[in-house]
Amino acid sequence: MAKKAVKKYVYYFGGGKADGRGNMKDLLGGKGAGLAEMTNLKIPVPAGFSITTEGCNEYFKAGKKYPPGMWEQVIENLKKVEKAMGTKLGDSVNPLLVSVRSGAKFSMPGMMDTVLNLGLNDTTINALIKKTGNERFVYDAYRRLITMFGSIVMGIDRQRFEKALEEMKEKKDVRLDTDLTAEDLRNLVGEFKIIYKRNTGEEFPVDPLEQLKKAINAVFGSWFGDRAVKYRKLNDIPDNLGTACNIQSMVFGNLGDNSGTGVGFTRDPSTGQKKFFAECLINAQGEDVVAGIRTPLRIEELRKRLPKAYKELYVIYKKLEKHYKDMLDIEFTVQEGKLYMLQTRVGKRTAAAALRIAIDMVKEKLIDKKTAILRIDPQQLDQLLHPMIDPKSQVKIIAKGLPASPGAAVGKVVLTAEDAERAADKGEKVILVRAETSPEDIGGMNAAQGILTARGGMTSHAAVVARGMGKCCVAGCGAINVNEVQKYFTVNDLVVKEGEYITLNGTTGEVMLGQAPLVTPELTGDFGIFMKWVDEYRKLGVRTNADTSHDSEVARKFGAEGIGLCRTEHMFFAPERISAVREMILADDTEGRKKALVKLLPMQKSDFIEIFRVMKGLPVTIRLLDPPLHEFLPHAEEDIRALAASTEVPVEKLKARNKALEEFNPMLGHRGCRLGVTYPEIYEMQVRAIMEAACELSKQKIKIIPEIMIPLIGHVNELRMMRELTVKTADEVQKRYNTKVSYTVGTMIELPRAAITADEIAAYADFYSFGTNDLTQTAFGLSRDDAGRFLPYYIEKGILENDPFVTLDQKGIGVLMKIGVEKGRKVKKHMKMGICGEHGGDPQSVEFCHKIGLDYVSCSPYRVPIARLAAAQSSLKEKSKKDLSRTTV
Amino acid sequence: MAKKAVKKYVYYFGGGKADGRGNMKDLLGGKGAGLAEMTNLKIPVPAGFSITTEGCNEYFKAGKKYPPGMWEQVIENLKKVEKAMGTKLGDSVNPLLVSVRSGAKFSMPGMMDTVLNLGLNDTTINALIKKTGNERFVYDAYRRLITMFGSIVMGIDRQRFEKALEEMKEKKDVRLDTDLTAEDLRNLVGEFKIIYKRNTGEEFPVDPLEQLKKAINAVFGSWFGDRAVKYRKLNDIPDNLGTACNIQSMVFGNLGDNSGTGVGFTRDPSTGQKKFFAECLINAQGEDVVAGIRTPLRIEELRKRLPKAYKELYVIYKKLEKHYKDMLDIEFTVQEGKLYMLQTRVGKRTAAAALRIAIDMVKEKLIDKKTAILRIDPQQLDQLLHPMIDPKSQVKIIAKGLPASPGAAVGKVVLTAEDAERAADKGEKVILVRAETSPEDIGGMNAAQGILTARGGMTSHAAVVARGMGKCCVAGCGAINVNEVQKYFTVNDLVVKEGEYITLNGTTGEVMLGQAPLVTPELTGDFGIFMKWVDEYRKLGVRTNADTSHDSEVARKFGAEGIGLCRTEHMFFAPERISAVREMILADDTEGRKKALVKLLPMQKSDFIEIFRVMKGLPVTIRLLDPPLHEFLPHAEEDIRALAASTEVPVEKLKARNKALEEFNPMLGHRGCRLGVTYPEIYEMQVRAIMEAACELSKQKIKIIPEIMIPLIGHVNELRMMRELTVKTADEVQKRYNTKVSYTVGTMIELPRAAITADEIAAYADFYSFGTNDLTQTAFGLSRDDAGRFLPYYIEKGILENDPFVTLDQKGIGVLMKIGVEKGRKVKKHMKMGICGEHGGDPQSVEFCHKIGLDYVSCSPYRVPIARLAAAQSSLKEKSKKDLSRTTV
Repeated sequence: MAKKAVKKYVYYFGGGKADGRGNMKDLLGGKGAGLAEMTNLKIPVPAGFSITTEGCNEYFKAGKKYPPGMWEQVIENLKKVEKAMGTKLGDSVNPLLVSVRSGAKFSMPGMMDTVLNLGLNDTTINALIKKTGNERFVYDAYRRLITMFGSIVMGIDRQRFEKALEEMKEKKDVRLDTDLTAEDLRNLVGEFKIIYKRNTGEEFPVDPLEQLKKAINAVFGSWFGDRAVKYRKLNDIPDNLGTACNIQSMVFGNLGDNSGTGVGFTRDPSTGQKKFFAECLINAQGEDVVAGIRTPLRIEELRKRLPKAYKELYVIYKKLEKHYKDMLDIEFTVQEGKLYMLQTRVGKRTAAAALRIAIDMVKEKLIDKKTAILRIDPQQLDQLLHPMIDPKSQVKIIAKGLPASPGAAVGKVVLTAEDAERAADKGEKVILVRAETSPEDIGGMNAAQGILTARGGMTSHAAVVARGMGKCCVAGCGAINVNEVQKYFTVNDLVVKEGEYITLNGTTGEVMLGQAPLVTPELTGDFGIFMKWVDEYRKLGVRTNADTSHDSEVARKFGAEGIGLCRTEHMFFAPERISAVREMILADDTEGRKKALVKLLPMQKSDFIEIFRVMKGLPVTIRLLDPPLHEFLPHAEEDIRALAASTEVPVEKLKARNKALEEFNPMLGHRGCRLGVTYPEIYEMQVRAIMEAACELSKQKIKIIPEIMIPLIGHVNELRMMRELTVKTADEVQKRYNTKVSYTVGTMIELPRAAITADEIAAYADFYSFGTNDLTQTAFGLSRDDAGRFLPYYIEKGILENDPFVTLDQKGIGVLMKIGVEKGRKVKKHMKMGICGEHGGDPQSVEFCHKIGLDYVSCSPYRVPIARLAAAQSSLKEKSKKDLSRTTV
Repeated sequence: MAKKAVKKYVYYFGGGKADGRGNMKDLLGGKGAGLAEMTNLKIPVPAGFSITTEGCNEYFKAGKKYPPGMWEQVIENLKKVEKAMGTKLGDSVNPLLVSVRSGAKFSMPGMMDTVLNLGLNDTTINALIKKTGNERFVYDAYRRLITMFGSIVMGIDRQRFEKALEEMKEKKDVRLDTDLTAEDLRNLVGEFKIIYKRNTGEEFPVDPLEQLKKAINAVFGSWFGDRAVKYRKLNDIPDNLGTACNIQSMVFGNLGDNSGTGVGFTRDPSTGQKKFFAECLINAQGEDVVAGIRTPLRIEELRKRLPKAYKELYVIYKKLEKHYKDMLDIEFTVQEGKLYMLQTRVGKRTAAAALRIAIDMVKEKLIDKKTAILRIDPQQLDQLLHPMIDPKSQVKIIAKGLPASPGAAVGKVVLTAEDAERAADKGEKVILVRAETSPEDIGGMNAAQGILTARGGMTSHAAVVARGMGKCCVAGCGAINVNEVQKYFTVNDLVVKEGEYITLNGTTGEVMLGQAPLVTPELTGDFGIFMKWVDEYRKLGVRTNADTSHDSEVARKFGAEGIGLCRTEHMFFAPERISAVREMILADDTEGRKKALVKLLPMQKSDFIEIFRVMKGLPVTIRLLDPPLHEFLPHAEEDIRALAASTEVPVEKLKARNKALEEFNPMLGHRGCRLGVTYPEIYEMQVRAIMEAACELSKQKIKIIPEIMIPLIGHVNELRMMRELTVKTADEVQKRYNTKVSYTVGTMIELPRAAITADEIAAYADFYSFGTNDLTQTAFGLSRDDAGRFLPYYIEKGILENDPFVTLDQKGIGVLMKIGVEKGRKVKKHMKMGICGEHGGDPQSVEFCHKIGLDYVSCSPYRVPIARLAAAQSSLKEKSKKDLSRTTV
């Protein structure tokens, strides 16, 4: 065995030279590669070494035995570390302490934590006490080592150590760990060793090499820990990658006034301003900063007190930023005057800062436009478009629901849509609080500043409508109990009455009592510049889902290139219309329905005229009536009585009609084109309204591109019949107006059967729009209104990675979409295809749409910029096979 | 043009020799080929000729012009007909009359009807009057010609002629057409000619050749008529087949006492007995038999009165049967002593007759076993398994619903399940009449003779459960209005009270007042012999859906080879269990649920023991709990109060629980494995019950093959988790009993996403069972409970060819199944796969299952023989590429 050439399992870093490099993540893991990179940049990093992923894999292959030569390499490199640091593991005068950390190719939250202070034992603590003159510090470090080693490496329940610590504090009648004396801690170390012995059957190892070996084994072992295996399964990370193990010498910032520690950012993470943004503590450990025990000083203090270290730090931060070409978050420690960099990674930042940094760096020629575009997380753009709660303000959070529609809102509580509208008429700002909303609440939702519901998920009615309106919404807030009759809601014992002020944070889902101060972020010049770049690289079209001219205007301002979904039914709920709609539903025969439809025609037409005017020159996809008719009838006793009074239809008849229209599963019931097939006069009226509006504007030389969309097609014959009806009606209108409008007729692909038979259906469709909300509901067999009872549990347990109503399920629903695209284009090669489900505004889903060759995505107005960015990124990612470093800020 | 060799467009038949043959359906159409075949058999057929489908196609290709030579061939063949018949078209002494009929390759109900009596004009009627001495007959024929020619060929509204006829009858104060005199009819002919002129702008053509040409053009034109085009689209018949056109000389059975007409069957169509079964009329037309104006005579009368014709007929019927090797339906006419055969086709027959004829013909060596098997329509077998209403009885039909479960039942009306059970306890026979049924009604349904519901389709709860029980059911009978409080139902003005007798015919959907006499068909020896043959050729396994030991016994008797679906939830409704089930649902936490489950365990276990005993040696697939929990709670106010009283749970809490469990779309809600994932203790109890039952019987040396099936899997992780739970529980039970049972764990593929990801899911499944009920609901986006509002309309309008819940939709749902089979077997090559949806008992669907390679189908006990036959036929059809003549009786 000795004869055989031995593989290199261990990569050293330290003293300005590393065996590895930044691009060796496969072998060294992300952390190890980063430490090597910094070392090679001649940046002072505490010396150490990484054991490769290959070493880990062979360890498992050999039945948890080190491959030949590996341990020898560890020892060899340990010597190099000792030499570089001028210390020695286990030395009775100048002992070396090390940390041991796992580090796989991909960051994995399920993996082992860090074990610090390895190398401490009864010999070395004495040396260290002598060296530092700080007995308390040393015993504190020792008890931490036993805790970490005991729990992380040996699997002892951490609570056992915590309990002993708590008991000690009780005995000494102190509140904080830091109030314990050196003697207390020494006693605690003794107790911890007993706990260790009792739980493992062996003594706490005094041999530092044994400590090290066990820690390495634990790092390797964590690769097949339950959480790690599950995480990999969910994230499609292969089991055979293995993890690297990083051993690095410890440095301390609390060895006197010539020591210190600090953290910082290379630019201001809040504004993006180009200035060094850091804080420090003199004679302190990194943990002290994090724990908030002492108030950190501005970085200028370091310049005054340790000018040499500061100067070095200044040079390093500039160098690192230039090297990584990004804003960085750094950690450093000064040990007895010597500066060490402990960590450098890309820094988190606000959306405004992200935008400013990206644009500045392009100007500084650090990065190119493409990189700048890939740097911004589309989701984060949202922050720029909505009011926010002033981060400096103190708020009282009383409950938390789902962050259903971003932004913030302040207003007085109202419990019904009517109250909301009344209050809004008086100029009052209100928050509409409902158990759940229904289409009848639209007016009230529109009048309110924000919406809070007790039931419903991210794609409940309230959430979808609020997002469409760009209005803040917290949905599914189970903690609140709404009493709309008595006009209050409760959260546990707290009663919030009508008229009291509350504040909603739709970005986090928080509900606050009182009026929090809001700030309205400006769409600065940066935003405009950036979005212009985005459009240079984007291939996928971006349209909007908009039902009103107001929404259409907002969306056009945000860059929408058309309407991908205009839902006609929302127009039906306006007070002056709903009565005609109800008259139609209550009609006994076709004639009765037609009479009511005649009243609706001019109203619908005027809506379309308004929308067409706003969207002139751009395509407008109008979906004919989709929801089941019972959604338009009142269901509460008093509403029924009111309707009976106004229509002179007997209450009993109304109830009977409600009963007759009631459905077990309305989602799978008499809706969509099934209404058009059974009551053709309804669709006929809608087509007439669309075409009359289009013809009138065309005569005014305004370019109108209507796309008439038939919903819920399951069988080609449905579309054939509805297309015939549409074409016949449209031709008749055009003849009457003596003008031509280039309209098209298409369908939604929102049922699995439609996707499966997309080749047959294509014969009668000019375009397809994937309705991924319903496609997800049907293919998953999952009602989005009911999923709240188990979907959160599914996500918590990792059964599903994401809420499939928020992020498109690519393996299931996505495959159906691909089948639909392929079969449709087999028949009509260049058929226009888009998506109009909620997923059209989700970046991951937008990327998928780009990949499968859709022509456009359509989303709510406020998500249009997000979709534009996601589309540009998809196209850039596709172009470049290079490993473009994408920052998730 | 004259130089070019001209194609043969016209095929003559007559005088014992035909240009065509029986296998030339492509060219001559079905009718033309049949006439040619009979002619070649030397059977006397009135002479005629067929214009080919090719002629039709070229006619359209040339812009509705005859191809060169075709008309000349018509004239030429007309001459041959004249020669054969000794008459001449338009002749003033001995005129020839002909009929013109369309005839495509496939029988097409949308095509042109027949035009009779072509050749009549003012000249020929005189000749005919002279010849027949029957002026009335001739004018009657003439007015019929003008009506048929005017309406069918020229498109005049038939009503116009009918109206004139009615007015004439009023004027003459007679009731029947036959009461009109020759003079009346002559006058009518005059009026008809005026109607013809007014509506076409031209005179009724007196030139027989012009009549002929126009009729031929009309036959061709009917190929592209709206109804025909639509019919072809729906039935996937290509447009380019074209239709043939048959011109045949007319013969008359009413030219005196040496003339006559008749119809008959070559064997008894009711019993299958081998004897000539025919009727005749002397001096009469075929129409007179059909119209029922005269009472037909037994065929023996023909022997007495026209012995020569009878003898000839006797020889011909024997010859035809031998030639066609099947029981035939024949039509004949004797014109002045000479016998002509007008039609021969395969005769309709009862199930019993079909079986007897098939078996007899095998014994007579006329056909082989395979042919016999292919001769029987599987659907028809059903007739043999259920009681029937005595066909001789007089019944009063008061309403008609859907034929939801076959057979017949007589009983007193009861309106609630409790009443049904009470009455049954007293030994009374009752019919349970409900607006709709729910799982709470199971006991009552079981106690009743039959079930009648006002709502719900062919796969509603009532229908599915009734079919499972083999019990007669009429569902979705919209005409009845049920008042269960006042205990009556109404049909229009008719009130039927509790206790009154009604009769149901589940085979036709008819509801009758009073007690109709029933007959119970015996499973004769024929049935047993036949089913044995069937199994010799069958490859597909046939299992049953059974939830009780009684159903299992019935199914085993019918030949089931295992249970494909045992629904555990039906067991939950038994009165002694439902309280424990409700206790579980009402529990506040896992502990409470477990306490209730402990009570359920022994009950479930004893159920499984019973079923396992019956099915010993055969596999039993048990599906774990599937329906949402709210189905087990009472919903009516009084039921809630009763439950509150018995459980000491406050009414308010019960209502709150109901409210909390309420779902918008229960079909897509918290059910199936989602229950198992969120309340693992429920599935754990069920697995324990199954395995304890299996272990106990195994110890008694009874072979048990349990297959544990997890419902409603949408994502592989659900199955992974449920499989782990199952295996862990099963291992624990086996260890406790110290025995091994070879159980398997599989899943239903009943969501589109499961089919799409069947490769992923296969890793954790030992078998797949396609749940095509739910797969149809989800892929079509169609709730079977709600579809009643539009599905009948869809089928009526031809949007859907079949109810997709009855016959599998092969183009949509079938494709998903294929994807599931292929993806599953890509991972596990020999994975066992079956179907357990209602489609498992539908012959067309069984054939599809055979084709896509399933291992078995599973259906309700009473459909097991049907599935066996359908499976055998599928396998025979696959084997033989020859055009086996399949009879649909």
